[in-house]
Amino acid sequence: MRNPPALEQLVESLRCLPGVGPKSALRMAYHLLQRDRKGASGLALALDNALQVVSHCGSCNTFSEQPLCPLCASTDRDSRLLCVVEMPTDLMMLEQTQAFRGKYFVLMGKLSPLDGVGPREIHLDKLIKRAQNNIVEEVILATNYTVEGEATAHFISELLRSRGLKVSRIARGLPMGGEIEHVDSSTLAQAMMERRLVG
Amino acid sequence: MRNPPALEQLVESLRCLPGVGPKSALRMAYHLLQRDRKGASGLALALDNALQVVSHCGSCNTFSEQPLCPLCASTDRDSRLLCVVEMPTDLMMLEQTQAFRGKYFVLMGKLSPLDGVGPREIHLDKLIKRAQNNIVEEVILATNYTVEGEATAHFISELLRSRGLKVSRIARGLPMGGEIEHVDSSTLAQAMMERRLVG
Ligand SMILES: [Zn+2]
Ligand SMILES: [Zn+2]
Repeated sequence: MRNPPALEQLVESLRCLPGVGPKSALRMAYHLLQRDRKGASGLALALDNALQVVSHCGSCNTFSEQPLCPLCASTDRDSRLLCVVEMPTDLMMLEQTQAFRGKYFVLMGKLSPLDGVGPREIHLDKLIKRAQNNIVEEVILATNYTVEGEATAHFISELLRSRGLKVSRIARGLPMGGEIEHVDSSTLAQAMMERRLVG
Repeated sequence: MRNPPALEQLVESLRCLPGVGPKSALRMAYHLLQRDRKGASGLALALDNALQVVSHCGSCNTFSEQPLCPLCASTDRDSRLLCVVEMPTDLMMLEQTQAFRGKYFVLMGKLSPLDGVGPREIHLDKLIKRAQNNIVEEVILATNYTVEGEATAHFISELLRSRGLKVSRIARGLPMGGEIEHVDSSTLAQAMMERRLVG
């Protein structure tokens, strides 16, 4: 006696979610089919819709439904400053501080050779093109002050400086091992203001 | 600057999964859109398909794609014995022991007044009809030996005995607080063999 095939397939499919093992996938499937069929149907719709309409901004690489995201399309930002962050969450945290009025590039990750995340996976070719548009005057590296975030910042600074670009790093106002997503707004604003040139 | 609406909707929809809060929903949505679009699309399909084809067996109440599940449709089982379990997982664990050749009824839960799970939510009307078919001679209660499982067994035994049915309880071979899903097969087989009459 096994679960019906469609249920087994659902359990298997739920495993694509990060942090979901076989036991919790089974628990989720039971819950959805037994207690929240409306939620399950809404989730299927939301997945299909997101897959269809969400892509990446051609300029800053963040998630976007338009070819150019609202921030990149804005004429209200200083195009001479380009701030590089790991994830869209980091961009949103920085926006909340209102300490930065330039533009962004979102890596969508960080260098992590052990997980197979190299320069290509964090879109460094796209970043190089973006930074070499003859308008950008300073690239501000706002990756996390974790081991991997630091390595990523170092790698990018070498890459951009060898192409004659001015590169700075947000100040270490963050505690060691700290992540931008979890730091308070004023500390983050301080770190942005105290950014230092690299090299 | 916020996430695009379709992404926000996906994050919101992922919250219907048990144990998924706002932070992990966001992490899941990013992961799916950025690294596993194929998985996301498969999940949407699996949800739709499961919602469409998975219902409950008309006889034992477990998840089934047919009106009658394979086990209920089988002529190979002793219809005089009806074993009541909380979840399909428990049924499958018992089947693995091969210590029981009767039929089942799956409550799809346990009494839990604080969570709003009463007699109706665990389908006791369906169980009463099922047990009173003039073929069932003994109802074996195989709910967990947890506080709620015990209360459920007690409630059901009162209900069925007042209707003249013979009711037994699997032996407490399980440790106190133990759950059928996590016990080894031989202990569970022992508990089935040493079941005792209630009352
Ligand atoms: Zn953009
Ligand atoms: Zn059945």
